[in-house]
Amino acid sequence: MENFEQHEIDSIIDPIIDDYNKERPIDSMCVFHQPDQQAIKDIINKLLRVFYPGYHRDKVYKFYNVRNNLSVLIEDIMYNLQKQISITLHNRDEYRDCTREETTDKEAYLITKKFFTKIPKIREYLNSDLEAAFEGDPAANSIDEIVLCYPGLLATTINRIAHELFLLDVPLIPRMMTEYAHSMTGVDLHPGATIGKYFFIDHATGIVVGSTTIIGDHVKVYQGVTLGALSTRKGQLLHGVKRHPTIEDNVTIYAGASVLGGETVIGEGSVIGSNAFITSSVAPGSRISVQNQKLQKMPGEDKIEKTSFDDNEDTWFYVI
Amino acid sequence: MENFEQHEIDSIIDPIIDDYNKERPIDSMCVFHQPDQQAIKDIINKLLRVFYPGYHRDKVYKFYNVRNNLSVLIEDIMYNLQKQISITLHNRDEYRDCTREETTDKEAYLITKKFFTKIPKIREYLNSDLEAAFEGDPAANSIDEIVLCYPGLLATTINRIAHELFLLDVPLIPRMMTEYAHSMTGVDLHPGATIGKYFFIDHATGIVVGSTTIIGDHVKVYQGVTLGALSTRKGQLLHGVKRHPTIEDNVTIYAGASVLGGETVIGEGSVIGSNAFITSSVAPGSRISVQNQKLQKMPGEDKIEKTSFDDNEDTWFYVI
Amino acid sequence: MENFEQHEIDSIIDPIIDDYNKERPIDSMCVFHQPDQQAIKDIINKLLRVFYPGYHRDKVYKFYNVRNNLSVLIEDIMYNLQKQISITLHNRDEYRDCTREETTDKEAYLITKKFFTKIPKIREYLNSDLEAAFEGDPAANSIDEIVLCYPGLLATTINRIAHELFLLDVPLIPRMMTEYAHSMTGVDLHPGATIGKYFFIDHATGIVVGSTTIIGDHVKVYQGVTLGALSTRKGQLLHGVKRHPTIEDNVTIYAGASVLGGETVIGEGSVIGSNAFITSSVAPGSRISVQNQKLQKMPGEDKIEKTSFDDNEDTWFYVI
Repeated sequence: MENFEQHEIDSIIDPIIDDYNKERPIDSMCVFHQPDQQAIKDIINKLLRVFYPGYHRDKVYKFYNVRNNLSVLIEDIMYNLQKQISITLHNRDEYRDCTREETTDKEAYLITKKFFTKIPKIREYLNSDLEAAFEGDPAANSIDEIVLCYPGLLATTINRIAHELFLLDVPLIPRMMTEYAHSMTGVDLHPGATIGKYFFIDHATGIVVGSTTIIGDHVKVYQGVTLGALSTRKGQLLHGVKRHPTIEDNVTIYAGASVLGGETVIGEGSVIGSNAFITSSVAPGSRISVQNQKLQKMPGEDKIEKTSFDDNEDTWFYVI
Repeated sequence: MENFEQHEIDSIIDPIIDDYNKERPIDSMCVFHQPDQQAIKDIINKLLRVFYPGYHRDKVYKFYNVRNNLSVLIEDIMYNLQKQISITLHNRDEYRDCTREETTDKEAYLITKKFFTKIPKIREYLNSDLEAAFEGDPAANSIDEIVLCYPGLLATTINRIAHELFLLDVPLIPRMMTEYAHSMTGVDLHPGATIGKYFFIDHATGIVVGSTTIIGDHVKVYQGVTLGALSTRKGQLLHGVKRHPTIEDNVTIYAGASVLGGETVIGEGSVIGSNAFITSSVAPGSRISVQNQKLQKMPGEDKIEKTSFDDNEDTWFYVI
Repeated sequence: MENFEQHEIDSIIDPIIDDYNKERPIDSMCVFHQPDQQAIKDIINKLLRVFYPGYHRDKVYKFYNVRNNLSVLIEDIMYNLQKQISITLHNRDEYRDCTREETTDKEAYLITKKFFTKIPKIREYLNSDLEAAFEGDPAANSIDEIVLCYPGLLATTINRIAHELFLLDVPLIPRMMTEYAHSMTGVDLHPGATIGKYFFIDHATGIVVGSTTIIGDHVKVYQGVTLGALSTRKGQLLHGVKRHPTIEDNVTIYAGASVLGGETVIGEGSVIGSNAFITSSVAPGSRISVQNQKLQKMPGEDKIEKTSFDDNEDTWFYVI
């Protein structure tokens, strides 16, 4: 291989160093208040062992003395979570001053403690999700299969963890958790979303649930569903405003449907058909479906080359 | 950092331990019959080296003595696969009794042996997939690029492995394999799905193929396609019933289309256009396309703030 | 466990070895010219530290002497990137002859040097993307959140790196990079795609941008958008032809919309509504939206079992 000489390296580094001094957002160097991505993933993976003691396990954990093993695991998570929360709390306005480390420590301690008292409640919700998945999916062979394989349950579990930290006003960490889930599952459940019991996601990929969404109990959602906002193109001005829908109990939303807008309420027991596009409220018990598409059929015709588009003409188009 | 005192730790652990004793599905502790997730991933990664000997390789493997190196690799996979199958066979009804370890060992040995005799057949199918991808994609520069980069081929490869184990009635492992593929590629091919030769998936993300789907030879499928079931909301009652479509030879299904229902057959040589929603059978040689959408255009209009929805009125809505 | 005897192992290995001698594409054994997947991922991860010096960091890097630390990092990446490029250049027609290692070394050195001079320009673009994401997303709390969490920015960053190597005519590596991004984010941005400043992707999953797409400045794209080709089913014959659209400055394309075809131009300042399917050019400043779907509503009706499809009848269908 050819060697780079020092002056060549310098000629590459000099402009980058100059660049770093431009004080743009990308040149930020204040890393002291960033949670560590790997630490957050480790915390999630250890919490999965607490939530599902018979799965996601350390191989020796839990057979001989559940209490001792759980104790070691919990102390580990508490220590690491508290540490990451303490770091990230400096992103809250009241802790912007870098030097007051001790002030975030106390708050991090209190938040961690509150979070851990929520575990039985989170497990109660997760157990209901597990039951909903088993009852709702003809392809499910066993509870084990759901816990070990279903990406929808994994995304829901991580959302429920992240949501509790979101409610405790922890910066950054909740979103890092849900994006870890998003990367693994293709499901983007914002930590701000409030999700009831017996939530079932099937097939998972491409689901988006916005930050101010409220979802009731016994709701089913299939692949490609968006519970989103209607854009009024105001960006940051909408920060904090409810812009995502409310889904009441016992609603089913089939593949590819979109339900949009902060004032949109899908009434209890409604069913939203595949690919429906809903931007206003729907009464309880409704069945909403897209009318039959007008399909064009030409049985037997073999060679169609026409691919241009014309408003006044039926044409064939295929995406590749 | 603040220290948690022992009584605080106890006050967190006690309710969790109580929780574990509630005997709900989530409280299951019977881990002895679970295959190990990491072991399954390792098996897949080693099988990729067997299937594609010029790729996915251990760096020293195969140049000087292909046979010796393959032998070491195969023995390793056979040992590990047999072990995981032996563990998971206890999930079959006839092996529920935990103590009869030796009985699953014999069956695991036979299944492993049968699986390995399928390798030349699987490789024949994979070679046809490789050819279909190269011929079908204008963006493909070389065979190497397809094997090294294309998520569709990776998902198809793992489905073909998992499907053979599914046919041999191995519990849990086939689905763990396809969900590993799902996580890496966004493609959800159920291990039950039967897929013919020369299968080509382009762009991959968001494809769902249900467990009782049957796909012929020379079929092309693009991003966002669902080969799914029509819900009659009976959940577990439909377990084992054919609920997903049959796609005959030489069919192309473009991006975002859905083909649904166990009695739906897409006849040989048909083309299904983007976003079409098909719930009944289609004759051989059909060209099915959605009729032109009625698009609303307002060139030049600059400020549209209207985002409400009204059945009797044209409105603008944008999802964010 | 049962033991496999040597003759059993042989009976499995023999047909596989026979198989490897069939000289099909899948039997290729020429691995000498393949870049190493893990090396490419490592290069990406180290480049992220160069591009975002306050994030993605090695924990001790950069506080005490930015220059020294950057120097060590850059030298590392230059060495590894040059090595991988030298290997892969043999895939270019002029370097097919395996023995001329030294000839690719010189070219790899020159390409590596050119790539590194592009870093300030890439960072300028990435900073604009960062600003666009913060301004465009009401859910964004801080710049840190975007860099640490947003999959759209990650996919865009890796595309910008890969695109420079694509322009320098490096085989294989650019696509390996974008597929690494695709796997992590669900966003499939081909390295050939040309993307202007202030590019914002929200929610990310399911976006496909084809290899000959050209995107201007200040463009926003939401989940599930395809910027694709119209199939004329000619496969490899279309290699190198512009088959993907041109998107001018200040265009917004909402969730699920498709814009298709190499001659399709979306004029400056246009807005494309959710799920629109565009196959011809659109004048500057247009607002394009799908007309209201005809939705069928049956408030209160409780038990609908009808799921068959009939062209002449309104029916309900739900995908599962």
